[in-house]
Amino acid sequence: MRILAIPGGITAAAGFRASGVAAGIKRSGALDVTLIAADQAASAAALFTTNQVQAAPVQVSRANLAASRGHVRAVIVNSGCANACTGSQGLETARATVAETGAALGCPSEQVLVSSTGVIGVHLDRKTMLAGVHSAAAALSRDGASAARGIMTTDLAPKEHGVQVETPKGVFRVGGIAKGAGMIEPMLATMLAFMTTDAKVEPALLDRALREVAGRTFNAITVDGECSTNDMLVGLASGASDATIGEAEYPALVAGLEAVARTLAIAIVRGGEGATKLVEIHVTGAASKEDAMRAAKTMANSPLVKTAVHGADPNWGRLVAASGRSGARFLIDRALVEVGGVLLFQNGQPYDDNAPEAAKLLERDEIEIHVDLGTGGAGEATVWTCDLSAEYVRINGEYRT
Amino acid sequence: MRILAIPGGITAAAGFRASGVAAGIKRSGALDVTLIAADQAASAAALFTTNQVQAAPVQVSRANLAASRGHVRAVIVNSGCANACTGSQGLETARATVAETGAALGCPSEQVLVSSTGVIGVHLDRKTMLAGVHSAAAALSRDGASAARGIMTTDLAPKEHGVQVETPKGVFRVGGIAKGAGMIEPMLATMLAFMTTDAKVEPALLDRALREVAGRTFNAITVDGECSTNDMLVGLASGASDATIGEAEYPALVAGLEAVARTLAIAIVRGGEGATKLVEIHVTGAASKEDAMRAAKTMANSPLVKTAVHGADPNWGRLVAASGRSGARFLIDRALVEVGGVLLFQNGQPYDDNAPEAAKLLERDEIEIHVDLGTGGAGEATVWTCDLSAEYVRINGEYRT
Repeated sequence: MRILAIPGGITAAAGFRASGVAAGIKRSGALDVTLIAADQAASAAALFTTNQVQAAPVQVSRANLAASRGHVRAVIVNSGCANACTGSQGLETARATVAETGAALGCPSEQVLVSSTGVIGVHLDRKTMLAGVHSAAAALSRDGASAARGIMTTDLAPKEHGVQVETPKGVFRVGGIAKGAGMIEPMLATMLAFMTTDAKVEPALLDRALREVAGRTFNAITVDGECSTNDMLVGLASGASDATIGEAEYPALVAGLEAVARTLAIAIVRGGEGATKLVEIHVTGAASKEDAMRAAKTMANSPLVKTAVHGADPNWGRLVAASGRSGARFLIDRALVEVGGVLLFQNGQPYDDNAPEAAKLLERDEIEIHVDLGTGGAGEATVWTCDLSAEYVRINGEYRT
Repeated sequence: MRILAIPGGITAAAGFRASGVAAGIKRSGALDVTLIAADQAASAAALFTTNQVQAAPVQVSRANLAASRGHVRAVIVNSGCANACTGSQGLETARATVAETGAALGCPSEQVLVSSTGVIGVHLDRKTMLAGVHSAAAALSRDGASAARGIMTTDLAPKEHGVQVETPKGVFRVGGIAKGAGMIEPMLATMLAFMTTDAKVEPALLDRALREVAGRTFNAITVDGECSTNDMLVGLASGASDATIGEAEYPALVAGLEAVARTLAIAIVRGGEGATKLVEIHVTGAASKEDAMRAAKTMANSPLVKTAVHGADPNWGRLVAASGRSGARFLIDRALVEVGGVLLFQNGQPYDDNAPEAAKLLERDEIEIHVDLGTGGAGEATVWTCDLSAEYVRINGEYRT
């Protein structure tokens, strides 16, 4: 098996077209409606937010995925308004949106998923949205670049990636787009991410692969510990290639999806609101995988850890304090802390002489932190996060107004 | 029963002397050693951090409180160094500190508690600390003002409060000092807080009162969601007044302790690192008290809520999203959100016309947020937090260096 990066994002896989248009939802005039369309109904799987508050588009997409038994022709997405906490009016708007998309593409509305991102609690103007559906349908093409832009909110750059997976049984491609920036600690899904493949795969197997991959990618990132009401990760498989995925080829599908998902997930962190540094936190020596993830996430969300990284301060005590309050089993007398491979604490003893070297490494824009919890267990986890800057405060104090 | 504020902090109660001196632990030359001494062994109770990583002074104080069966003559405190994660050398320093304090005061070392605050993982210079013990012992007086200053780290102002409780069965006083600013979401204790009373009360009853009060005060605040390795709340009762506390007088003791503890706890939040606003979050309609606290704490620690408050943005969607991910039962269709008494969301519908009025209220430096979780349950909780500012980032990116 060989995996190669290839150009293109959501349309890197055969059998898909996409577009991004400016429908006027964003006052700025930026692109705000994205349409992803499969030439035929594609095998589909999705993960949705686990927040108890679920936006209207999440409710409609969940129902349609079930009603279509995992066969989806299109995903219609808007940015600039989350259509969350908007009551029955919001639900009607989401339903009208899938109906209009189905009509434009000539498919049943239950084969359309819908997704929104932006401010919570503001009504999405129905007329504007439906006009956007038609513009987007007219603009569909094999060039997916505008689709990646149409889902952006505070993102500084579009996020897309594509790979080609070469196996003895056939070649297939995987592509994807995602948006990030804020309200990012997905819980079983991520803000918005859409992935396509031209492999032939049944919805059930695609679902299994998508969940497995999400656990190590989109669910292993955090910008600010916030879980959105609109999180959605959708995978679509067109079957337009000659590669058929059964149990034997499942690892190749996972590898292809993971290559794209990891790149998108890390791009979300790197482009996190106000972020200046990408931080990879690797936890070892945990009593279980769950404990490892718990400690890693607690450190990744710690404002004191994030500000220390921002200030290039090798303040490893904050890593130890966060691990100690995480709920994960932690044996301080056998624990270890390394920053950029430089030992700062081991077996209960500080290595202060190494602090200047660690401080220098912390000036870089990619930082590796390793904490061993000292239990001797085999539990491990890797989590990606970003630093906390004054810019994050500025963005989120001024976001709505 | 009547409760009156009176001048003085830790020495507002009879039977206590205190001092704060500059021993040279802080490079700045600011006060860094505080001694609180009872004229006789006082009834004592304490709550310690629940962080799995426990600083040397926490370990020594816990052991001494048990060994003395709740009879304590003194608490010796230093700021500028947490003496946490400092291995056996740190433990020896903490033990030497209580021994030196006991010698200076003429009491067994097991009647001395010790407490430290500052950077984690740096050794506390033993010679400097022991010299500080002697200076502090020589400076003991009935004026406790310097004691409140000696425990400060990034605090902008000392925190002290005293009250007089008048009951039919006698009059007693309660005083206290605390430090706050950062690493503040105490878990069963708070960073450092010391309270005294001249009521006559057995250690067991004092312990019960201290735990009850902490749950509604020190454990109901958060600055940054971080639980320190050095958290400690100590209560001392000298019995120097004519008021004896039994079961009948227990509510008066709780009321007195709570009046001081609440003032100190709110002062910690108001003086939180970079804080410009005090935010009271009141949750009602929860399925249980625990659920109410869970939702309130999740909102209080949400960086998106804290930055919205900072920017005076009535972005109630962030409150709803945080409640929805908190794990507390939350029924969006029956929920309610008010900011400063202004209705922004109810029964699934936004009240956007009220947003400008709420925005104006958010400009104030004291803000009330009310969220009803909509379950119809009787669970309630109140939590205090502060906003998240660029100054927080500056302070914590530069704290150590």
